Amino acid sequence: MNQFIRVNLTNMAIEIQPVPEKYQGLGGRALTSSFINDEVKPTCHPLGKNNKLIFAPGLLSGTSAPNSGRLSVGAKSPLTGTIKECNTGGVFSQKMAKMGIKALVVEGVPSDDKFYIIKLDQNGVTIDEAPEEILGGCGNYKAIEVLSGKYGSHVGIALAGPAGEHRLPTANISFKDPEGNIRSAGRGGLGAVMGSKKLKGIVIDDTGAGAVPIAEPEKFRAAAKVFANALLSHPVSGQGLAAYGTDVLVNILNEAGGLPSYNFTQGRIEHNDNISGETMNATITERGGDGKVSHGCHRGCIIKCSQWYPDKQGKYITSGFEYETIWALGADAGIKDMDQIAYMDRAMDDIGIDSIEVSVAVATAMEGGLLPWGDGEAVLDAIQQIAVPTPLGRILGGGCAVVGKVCGLYRTPVVKDQAIPAYDPRSVKGIGLTYATTPMGADHTAGYCVSGNILKVGGDLDPLKKDGQIEYARSMQIGTAAVDSTGMCLFVYFGIADSPEGYQALIDMINAQYGLSLTSGDVDKLGETVLKVERDFNKRAGFTNAHDRLPEFFEYEALPPHNTVWDFTPEEIDEVYNF
Amino acid sequence: MNQFIRVNLTNMAIEIQPVPEKYQGLGGRALTSSFINDEVKPTCHPLGKNNKLIFAPGLLSGTSAPNSGRLSVGAKSPLTGTIKECNTGGVFSQKMAKMGIKALVVEGVPSDDKFYIIKLDQNGVTIDEAPEEILGGCGNYKAIEVLSGKYGSHVGIALAGPAGEHRLPTANISFKDPEGNIRSAGRGGLGAVMGSKKLKGIVIDDTGAGAVPIAEPEKFRAAAKVFANALLSHPVSGQGLAAYGTDVLVNILNEAGGLPSYNFTQGRIEHNDNISGETMNATITERGGDGKVSHGCHRGCIIKCSQWYPDKQGKYITSGFEYETIWALGADAGIKDMDQIAYMDRAMDDIGIDSIEVSVAVATAMEGGLLPWGDGEAVLDAIQQIAVPTPLGRILGGGCAVVGKVCGLYRTPVVKDQAIPAYDPRSVKGIGLTYATTPMGADHTAGYCVSGNILKVGGDLDPLKKDGQIEYARSMQIGTAAVDSTGMCLFVYFGIADSPEGYQALIDMINAQYGLSLTSGDVDKLGETVLKVERDFNKRAGFTNAHDRLPEFFEYEALPPHNTVWDFTPEEIDEVYNF
Repeated sequence: MNQFIRVNLTNMAIEIQPVPEKYQGLGGRALTSSFINDEVKPTCHPLGKNNKLIFAPGLLSGTSAPNSGRLSVGAKSPLTGTIKECNTGGVFSQKMAKMGIKALVVEGVPSDDKFYIIKLDQNGVTIDEAPEEILGGCGNYKAIEVLSGKYGSHVGIALAGPAGEHRLPTANISFKDPEGNIRSAGRGGLGAVMGSKKLKGIVIDDTGAGAVPIAEPEKFRAAAKVFANALLSHPVSGQGLAAYGTDVLVNILNEAGGLPSYNFTQGRIEHNDNISGETMNATITERGGDGKVSHGCHRGCIIKCSQWYPDKQGKYITSGFEYETIWALGADAGIKDMDQIAYMDRAMDDIGIDSIEVSVAVATAMEGGLLPWGDGEAVLDAIQQIAVPTPLGRILGGGCAVVGKVCGLYRTPVVKDQAIPAYDPRSVKGIGLTYATTPMGADHTAGYCVSGNILKVGGDLDPLKKDGQIEYARSMQIGTAAVDSTGMCLFVYFGIADSPEGYQALIDMINAQYGLSLTSGDVDKLGETVLKVERDFNKRAGFTNAHDRLPEFFEYEALPPHNTVWDFTPEEIDEVYNF
Repeated sequence: MNQFIRVNLTNMAIEIQPVPEKYQGLGGRALTSSFINDEVKPTCHPLGKNNKLIFAPGLLSGTSAPNSGRLSVGAKSPLTGTIKECNTGGVFSQKMAKMGIKALVVEGVPSDDKFYIIKLDQNGVTIDEAPEEILGGCGNYKAIEVLSGKYGSHVGIALAGPAGEHRLPTANISFKDPEGNIRSAGRGGLGAVMGSKKLKGIVIDDTGAGAVPIAEPEKFRAAAKVFANALLSHPVSGQGLAAYGTDVLVNILNEAGGLPSYNFTQGRIEHNDNISGETMNATITERGGDGKVSHGCHRGCIIKCSQWYPDKQGKYITSGFEYETIWALGADAGIKDMDQIAYMDRAMDDIGIDSIEVSVAVATAMEGGLLPWGDGEAVLDAIQQIAVPTPLGRILGGGCAVVGKVCGLYRTPVVKDQAIPAYDPRSVKGIGLTYATTPMGADHTAGYCVSGNILKVGGDLDPLKKDGQIEYARSMQIGTAAVDSTGMCLFVYFGIADSPEGYQALIDMINAQYGLSLTSGDVDKLGETVLKVERDFNKRAGFTNAHDRLPEFFEYEALPPHNTVWDFTPEEIDEVYNF
């Protein structure tokens, strides 16, 4: 029997129920967003007792489907005030799925000042006090070690880091990955929601759990094979990402003039070689030691866009060293040393903060005079202050919108108070529509129009022109909402966008697992429904079309080298959600 | 001829026009709000080049009507994102009116990094570079001295203080009062708008200006006399405010259990005697020297609620030492020493920040662990850091909502990101409706329902009950919007609320000045129109009824001693604007 688990931390009540009928057949984002829209008062304070936090594996998680190990986490976001789904790799999703846990809901706030650990295993749910030694500034790497020691090295772990304990709106939820390193449900401050509930961690032990039941195993295996072939035969998902990681995009975006630099004043930099994926590959290869050029964030990943980045002595510094973080610190903040950026990435993982939000905030803080441009040492020190937190640490940990507010800037690159990532909307117009309109606040993963605009996968649009972008942004957001419900990594898109067989294989796997006969029309419908549910929440929380706008300066500051501005009219932008 | 002056700081263009037809017959808030709604894009960034700043005297300003010297300032607020009108005493309004200047509009942003001074005199408008010595942290007291030295001691002066130069969202606009001290257009951060336009100051020299023309002087004089009698014969406006200043309210609200204390956790304190108006009166009287128990913020004031508060040696510390500031620091932040609070008040005037917003932010910062409870020395030091600004100074200068964000608090007393002032909405329910619904963000002056709830002037409502409050809050907001358009001090309300002759005399003065025959119905209509215009702007800026809500904790945390919660339903709250 599939389980729907509720833990209420106000009275420490645990409820293990069958999945409510209305949530049957849903997984991942479809489930978390429906639940939040149903049960959370849209005008509640995100850090108050009435917000709820839900964890849900995707529909295919726990199976042998390639790249299906992503976990969705949902709540009302303390950063944006919107509904939020963010997802992560790691081992959590697969363990939940194997144990038949369709959702874990955390409600309420303890009346005392202690922090707690929720433990899930085959015997049910227990609530422990968090060990003193992992509280009050203890980094996530250490906390994972301590909890692995206490609960066993095989368990899955979710953590609110120091930033989450302090309820900073950039706090992420950090997850132990297969090797005991860190993966993050990064955006929107859900770690602060966890911290507000005094929930330091969740431990999951799937010892004794069987395999996820598959209705038609033969069909499933056949479809999984076709799907895997589609991923591996595509140059992006089969080669580029494995060789250079997501950081392969530095040179691509720089060439396209869409790499926002020096707080979104330029679209191209001279020092791209310092921070490119090609350089990262060469550095890792040259240094050897712990270094790995290619590595997956969860078991069953065949794309392997992650890597282990080592120091000069070959000792592991960080993994999951993503393009968006490297872009923000390297190009937007002008830090030219990849080793310094790697240490910052490690520090942000260790503190448990969204490395996109805080890194963009760093660049904005440089424009605001809070930090010197390009100064890696000053930035690493400032990031470490978030763990304390000092006043400067609190400002950066408050996110980009807070930095803009306390520095009196109008050049604050946020939508719905969430930082705009690594693709300038003036020269990659499609992605600008996603930033503006997604219910999540600025988020490239909510409809990655960079694909058809720049990579020419799944579309061929002129990134500098408006033509076709509205329809494309709409379809990308709909498709993404569906994919985010399957537990699939977003990058499977590259494999299936131009491969009808690959796409059909994805649907076939779902059908084979659940004994269904869904069509691509059903998948689109699912995506549309998810987005409508999310928009409904946001509307009731007070969001209107006036919030679906980019910061005004994009409209009148032209971006070199193409010297283009953001020129969609409000009416055009509003067309994205005309479905 | 009445003038409508526009200064565009992008190209330094000056335009002196007749008052556009649609603004004829409007003054004060009616004029500023209509103009902002007409000409400012509601989704613009408040600190970007497309925001505009407008200064307008009230309809009766510059005449001999008692208490008619208030000036309205309007813009889109960088604190709230709403339309904003805030008003101030000082000499500016009367000088503008005498010179026939119905409005000064400041637009654009200079392309260089210099700060400027706009000078208005009988020869027109000039734009000077600001003297170096008043820039970069120079306090307002000194800046007024320097500018008075340069332009003459008789001129009026408006200033963006250090906080305004740094574009902090709590920056006010500081005005020289008749004695060269400071009055403030306090709320909503309009000093930051001034700073964003690199406008350090405005100097007005009315040398050579005649009297404001009066169509029917006899009638005017007669009405003014009746009006003055109404004010002086009322115990609040004729006696209480003169004797004890607005700080008379400490004991009244404490007794009523509506004095929000220790960040809105209690409605009553034990140390009320330390900070009461009665104590202030006794201290000023005892210390002598520069001390003045009673004093007006502008010429022609007959209420005289201001005072000069001296130190132990009798030397002037501060004036305009208001209840709301003393409440926030004394009760909400628990600082028990009135002298310390006086130095903080002076420091905030000198830096040019809203003493309500920053003082409430101080109390919230104490809950957040940024400052120790009740520690006057630490707070004075922190306030002075706003002038630098240090990171801590920036956080406090960011306002209460920013403090709540970076401290991860759900107990953040703001509406539309503006701090809730000195009357707890759980035990003074009428004022809670004003906080929730006024287009200004939480603002007691937008519909001072404390009057009929606590003071029993103009109404007799049970402050702990909902009965009659919706209609009362509606009528108070409508009436206030009208009064804010006349240039009248808000406190004339006490004199006219229960005096039909007094109210008629106010209308008679307007009619006599302009040769009109307005009725009380027209006045109500004016108030309604102003509010509708403001709501229209806010709606287009993205505000909905979901923003017309108090922070959620008021709904479930009962306030001692009455142990009442905020229990208006959303539907009831929305009824306030049902007109």
